[in-house]
Amino acid sequence: MAVVESKEWYLSAYVSDGLPTSDHLKLRSVNLSLAADSIPDQHVALEILWISVDPYLRSIMSGHDDGLCIPQFQLNQAITAFGIGRVVGTKDNNFAEGDVVVNPLSPIAEYCVASAAFLRKIDTSAGIPLPDYLNSLGLSGFTAWVGIEVLGNLKPGSNVFISAAAGGVGMVAGKLAKLKGCRVVGSTGSDEKVKLLKDEFGYDDAFNYHTETDFDAALSKRFPDGIDIYFENVGGKMLEAVLNNVNKGARIPLCGMISQYNQRWTEREGVRNLLNMVGKEVRMEGFMLGSYMNRFGDFMKEMEGYIKEGKIISKHRIYNGIESFLESFNSMFSSSNVGKVIIQVRP
Amino acid sequence: MAVVESKEWYLSAYVSDGLPTSDHLKLRSVNLSLAADSIPDQHVALEILWISVDPYLRSIMSGHDDGLCIPQFQLNQAITAFGIGRVVGTKDNNFAEGDVVVNPLSPIAEYCVASAAFLRKIDTSAGIPLPDYLNSLGLSGFTAWVGIEVLGNLKPGSNVFISAAAGGVGMVAGKLAKLKGCRVVGSTGSDEKVKLLKDEFGYDDAFNYHTETDFDAALSKRFPDGIDIYFENVGGKMLEAVLNNVNKGARIPLCGMISQYNQRWTEREGVRNLLNMVGKEVRMEGFMLGSYMNRFGDFMKEMEGYIKEGKIISKHRIYNGIESFLESFNSMFSSSNVGKVIIQVRP
Repeated sequence: MAVVESKEWYLSAYVSDGLPTSDHLKLRSVNLSLAADSIPDQHVALEILWISVDPYLRSIMSGHDDGLCIPQFQLNQAITAFGIGRVVGTKDNNFAEGDVVVNPLSPIAEYCVASAAFLRKIDTSAGIPLPDYLNSLGLSGFTAWVGIEVLGNLKPGSNVFISAAAGGVGMVAGKLAKLKGCRVVGSTGSDEKVKLLKDEFGYDDAFNYHTETDFDAALSKRFPDGIDIYFENVGGKMLEAVLNNVNKGARIPLCGMISQYNQRWTEREGVRNLLNMVGKEVRMEGFMLGSYMNRFGDFMKEMEGYIKEGKIISKHRIYNGIESFLESFNSMFSSSNVGKVIIQVRP
Repeated sequence: MAVVESKEWYLSAYVSDGLPTSDHLKLRSVNLSLAADSIPDQHVALEILWISVDPYLRSIMSGHDDGLCIPQFQLNQAITAFGIGRVVGTKDNNFAEGDVVVNPLSPIAEYCVASAAFLRKIDTSAGIPLPDYLNSLGLSGFTAWVGIEVLGNLKPGSNVFISAAAGGVGMVAGKLAKLKGCRVVGSTGSDEKVKLLKDEFGYDDAFNYHTETDFDAALSKRFPDGIDIYFENVGGKMLEAVLNNVNKGARIPLCGMISQYNQRWTEREGVRNLLNMVGKEVRMEGFMLGSYMNRFGDFMKEMEGYIKEGKIISKHRIYNGIESFLESFNSMFSSSNVGKVIIQVRP
């Protein structure tokens, strides 16, 4: 391959409040040489096939860190996410043309040249659809697994509550908890998704937080015996309601808080009842996947098993074409999706 | 002994907001028979000598539980606290007249008849002053010890911040952290106490939260390398400031939040930056002493050793006479004390 034209998304202005618009995120075409003599040693050229769209990206578009401690995107640089690509040129002995790889630092673009150090090869002979590697076998699935399996201390019969339950992480977390014999209830943003959670995802119960706005009542009704584990994806008022309904020794793994990303921290809803953590001896614990990478192999093995046995089915909301990034990203904040948001670069 | 007149404090109305007044807490005289045939089996009659006055009592004067899960005081009943008494009559083989005991459910009164099951005998031959058994060897000391030794995961060189540092719990917690080789900074409510913390209690630094009201700045100045352990006694804005200055993997044991007790939870200051717990992988954990009673022996042994070696000196603020309870209790919320508040029933 010689020179290709590659469309890529870049950040032209930081997003101080609210959602990004076309004033902040812009698409441009760049010419990229994929010729062998343009690829540095230990690098490969990739045609990008799939891109994972995740809420945490919002927290690194602000220009100031407000909680996640991930470096902010640089202005006028291509923004990056987890992606899957096919090797179309290689200067690394571990990768051959045609290999399909996961790239944790993929530009949101059509092509790239990437350091081989961070790539992980996908065994396409396993017959697992590629988007699954960005979903239950990717960032979302691993986040769910660490929260539920490593930090949640689940037992059969534990009462588990999951917010953003139909999203990429919540969906897998709920399934994992069900597979452990727990009673699982989820909150989500539409009646249609409530139905899906109960009928397709195996949740014992679910509610729509847009119509049942008294979260305290919604939870006490569904957890007459209290909440043992809250898998926190939301923050704010939902966390307060949970703290009013927790059992002694409850666990709250924190992986992110989608309700909090669009505001500076000083503008956010405070949580007023942390004192409940004392009497109920609650443990709340933040986690970042980087600290659990030594468990990634265990995760992959367990999750591949579940997928092959049909026990976990990855649900995706696929957006078509690299042009759809802005729309697909903002959709996550409006309760309009079911499942993990993924872009198919060339539909 | 026959019939004695005993003054006792009782709750005549629940305290919905703010501090209790003489409208809520009242003193009355009751006639109490201490004659042998008036004492039930497995009970003893006690002359009460010392009473421990602690902030958590506020949380059980409201008539509604707002976090600590301790049963509320009953209206018109004598209120109870930790106390030390001398046995003046006995129907239990384990206790003789003249024994001195700690009673975790002592009425705030001059005399009582108590179940022997909950009493713990003090070895007066050890030569430790009796008030110490309500201070560093009592509830305050055990709270400090569990937070620092069991949950804090301290290492030599850890950066430790303690709020309400000159209070009963904070004082001992700071000393324990210093004995483990940590760098310890405290916040307190007066310049005089700042000086005491630095000069007498061995704190490396301290600040007055009434004059340094930008807590974020006060902490970032004193913790250029960040906070590893925050021993939380306060809640609200101070917790927010800590979460803006924590290190990766920081620990926050929660034993109580004195800034929060005087309000219903819906009126309290919310904590808006819990998202920081994600990126920094912070663990926040509430604890109640009841869950750690299997460690009480370890605690007593270690703490008695420190006291005998002069490594921990119990500082008390002693109020005189049972009549002083209301004044002594409210004093804890106005930054006016140094050390543990204790009543000497008969000065």
